[in-house]
Amino acid sequence: MGFRVLYPGSVPPSVSASTRVVSESSVRRLSLYLRVLEELAAEGERAVSSEEVAARAGTTAAQVRKDLSTFGSFGKRGLGYPTRELSIHLRDILGLTRSWKVVLVGAGRIGAALFEYPHFRDRGFEIVAVLDADPGKVGTRWGGRRIRPVTELETAIREEGAEILILTVPAPFAQEIAERAVASGVRGVLNFAPTPLRLPAGVEVNEVDMSLELEALSYALHSRRCR
Amino acid sequence: MGFRVLYPGSVPPSVSASTRVVSESSVRRLSLYLRVLEELAAEGERAVSSEEVAARAGTTAAQVRKDLSTFGSFGKRGLGYPTRELSIHLRDILGLTRSWKVVLVGAGRIGAALFEYPHFRDRGFEIVAVLDADPGKVGTRWGGRRIRPVTELETAIREEGAEILILTVPAPFAQEIAERAVASGVRGVLNFAPTPLRLPAGVEVNEVDMSLELEALSYALHSRRCR
Repeated sequence: MGFRVLYPGSVPPSVSASTRVVSESSVRRLSLYLRVLEELAAEGERAVSSEEVAARAGTTAAQVRKDLSTFGSFGKRGLGYPTRELSIHLRDILGLTRSWKVVLVGAGRIGAALFEYPHFRDRGFEIVAVLDADPGKVGTRWGGRRIRPVTELETAIREEGAEILILTVPAPFAQEIAERAVASGVRGVLNFAPTPLRLPAGVEVNEVDMSLELEALSYALHSRRCR
Repeated sequence: MGFRVLYPGSVPPSVSASTRVVSESSVRRLSLYLRVLEELAAEGERAVSSEEVAARAGTTAAQVRKDLSTFGSFGKRGLGYPTRELSIHLRDILGLTRSWKVVLVGAGRIGAALFEYPHFRDRGFEIVAVLDADPGKVGTRWGGRRIRPVTELETAIREEGAEILILTVPAPFAQEIAERAVASGVRGVLNFAPTPLRLPAGVEVNEVDMSLELEALSYALHSRRCR
């Protein structure tokens, strides 16, 4: 089989998602705040207000204060948040002070785009193996990395100690590949195949499906017009 | 400028998102239910239970019943939901019984993957123009479509009557292009640039940022280990 091109977008937590201490949307906001704080630090700002963070992150100052207070008390009234210290703390909360080894299955366009994304490596995500089922792709190189046959999935995960799988394969192949990856030690899956995965409890799955994003937009535009 | 490759994933509704009647996650589930119902209809199933829909959509039967009851009463106790009628109804709720004209700005890898995605057209999303700022890309063809210079954005939107913008450009260019598109008649934006957009109230924005998806996974794996 050759892998079709597949597509991003986000669906509700799958059945296998574990219970979270903090809501998914507040984690996403923390990621945004971190990005904003790093920008501000790069611009030489040593302290920032919740208003400043909110403006750049597209939210409200009250929301910023509420989200940050969940994780402890930062900042002093009138002085704002210490930019660098807060960045470090957010990186720590988000698990970004360590590195994660990632296996990518599906060497199509989305796979290539993800592979080349420089921000992943900055954040400690290292793609340690790329695999595909298409003999025409196997053996070709992406950067310094040779694309391996998907039959080597278990070996690649074990050799590299990979914990995260990025899955950009057609829907019919997704479940089987995910199960094999989990059996070999993967604990988190970013799934671009447009099909929900059923995996053991304790395995984190983020589903990403582009057409759902467009449909959400269609719903919003359509329902507005009808109101 | 040449467009860098940019990246999917989902962030909280932006400041410009309008108030929804229904939660974003329930709209996403409706999209999933629709996909499941269409699969079942293709397999010849004339009626389905909430359990069957739930199993394929990766949720619970109670959730399915709750989501569907929001939009009226479907199905009869003991008989299940009529597959075809419910599909049609969901398509209607999601605004998929009409077509949407979409302009794509940014002819990079993500843009190409989206452009080739067959499911968009099935769902009534038609990419009527592709634009890029890179002179090396302008004039080349994607399928039958010639890539146009981004200076023609306003013309393209007005000529085609496009209402949706897909933005796969680097962060520094996103805000300006989005503003120009909105001024020319676009009402909904799917934003892949890793920067939140600030657009007038009434414009729908879905932000899509791949690194936030990986960070959410990192958070979940990290916090689980720490508990």
